[in-house]
Amino acid sequence: MPHELTLLEQHKVFDGCQYRYRHYSTTLNCEMTFSLFLPNKKKFSSPPLLWWLSGLTCNDENFTTKAGAQQAAARLGMAIIMPDTSPRGPEVADVKEWDLGQGAGFYLNATQTPWAAHYRMYDYLNEELYSLVQVSLGFTGPHAIAGHSMGGHGALVMALKNPHKFRSVSAFAPIVNPMDVPWGQNAFQAYLGNNRDLWSEWDACKLMADYQGTALPVLIDQGDEDPFLQQQLQPEKLVEIAEKVNYPLTLRIQPGYDHSYYFIASFIEEHLTFHQQYLQNA
Amino acid sequence: MPHELTLLEQHKVFDGCQYRYRHYSTTLNCEMTFSLFLPNKKKFSSPPLLWWLSGLTCNDENFTTKAGAQQAAARLGMAIIMPDTSPRGPEVADVKEWDLGQGAGFYLNATQTPWAAHYRMYDYLNEELYSLVQVSLGFTGPHAIAGHSMGGHGALVMALKNPHKFRSVSAFAPIVNPMDVPWGQNAFQAYLGNNRDLWSEWDACKLMADYQGTALPVLIDQGDEDPFLQQQLQPEKLVEIAEKVNYPLTLRIQPGYDHSYYFIASFIEEHLTFHQQYLQNA
Repeated sequence: MPHELTLLEQHKVFDGCQYRYRHYSTTLNCEMTFSLFLPNKKKFSSPPLLWWLSGLTCNDENFTTKAGAQQAAARLGMAIIMPDTSPRGPEVADVKEWDLGQGAGFYLNATQTPWAAHYRMYDYLNEELYSLVQVSLGFTGPHAIAGHSMGGHGALVMALKNPHKFRSVSAFAPIVNPMDVPWGQNAFQAYLGNNRDLWSEWDACKLMADYQGTALPVLIDQGDEDPFLQQQLQPEKLVEIAEKVNYPLTLRIQPGYDHSYYFIASFIEEHLTFHQQYLQNA
Repeated sequence: MPHELTLLEQHKVFDGCQYRYRHYSTTLNCEMTFSLFLPNKKKFSSPPLLWWLSGLTCNDENFTTKAGAQQAAARLGMAIIMPDTSPRGPEVADVKEWDLGQGAGFYLNATQTPWAAHYRMYDYLNEELYSLVQVSLGFTGPHAIAGHSMGGHGALVMALKNPHKFRSVSAFAPIVNPMDVPWGQNAFQAYLGNNRDLWSEWDACKLMADYQGTALPVLIDQGDEDPFLQQQLQPEKLVEIAEKVNYPLTLRIQPGYDHSYYFIASFIEEHLTFHQQYLQNA
């Protein structure tokens, strides 16, 4: 059954169009907003779809307005879907802190009170929105996934759990080992409780170490002036595991760049080109 | 005497750096913030400087984060200065409306109470900030100017009043005839009082009709889906005058684009390339 979608905004940008939609999510039990970029429909009737997952504090609009991805996407003929980072609304549990609650869903399914009632971002993306883009938005092409920081964690976890759904995965400054860094531990404790076995189901390092089936090409960019690099990110941990299990991962340390969208804007075209090479092949 | 500048932020972006500065403006009698993009200093030791003036409700960061201009500016070796759109602070007169007061300085010198105490954006840009970029930031190259909506009005007025200071001027969806459209009339009435002779000193149509001295090349882009086109913008009025007085103006109507930064992002590279051809020549 098609999902009921309300079009909130549309803007021509480069040779494509940026849309913003609202819909009621039966997975999250709340209204959700997402953004979608479509390249020129006349030139690209069945574009591949890149999922972009944003970081802590973001909603669907940060990447939309700040990354400048539409220029390359319009040229390459790539669609981009930009979901929100958590359930939203006055009925949805929240805290004052910016690294937990609304804007900080960590792309997992919460098991603990009061979070479990709404915080099921993994199922929302993996089932509801994945179905919506095909049934209601008519996407029939292949998918890839990318993200930033908490969204880099989300993209890696989503791809490692569902290698059949994506052709490739990339991340900017991802949280690769949330169960062993403060941001992740704080969130996993709240959303998942004390059981570290449950935590490991949402940890890219653990998932890659135990991966089975197809390995997807991974590109990670990390700025060496990122203030969160040492305590929260530590991408070399994932590189070490990738080498051990022979997973095709490229980590690029970019000198002078920080954690901001200025960093993302500087390399987003290269990420789109990276994905394009895998999305083009049947 | 060098101005005292406080560096608030800096971010590497593409092959350049985005800075944000704060300083006390003796013209505006308040603290002011501006942003500055510099291309790679090793490659471009004396870059030309493009002034960007933003529209209603904006501050220095809208263009910085949303226009994606740094990519082309880094490649071309062009610096960009992005001032705020009005004086700021609790001591500065303001109203609830978004089209008057803070965020809506209209790049003029107010004469009326309570605005005259702080609202002198024209002198701030034309004298204080123009001196600051040379004395304190060390710019020695040529200047160009551009802007959006109210900032397009500002860029045109600034260039028409000071053709010796700029090599070229461009605008996205500018207010070209503020004294005869609601946004401009509302602001001019408040800032300048009832004397329409005074209004005409801040109206690009009037200034171009009476221009003397050097004519600067002008490029204007206007989206035909812009909701403000008919009532507030009317660029054909300026085209008519330019044809009459033989002023070198190019107006491009861009089909499907609206008034947003998505429109600006789509054509900013072409504007930078337009300015570059005049900035390169000695």
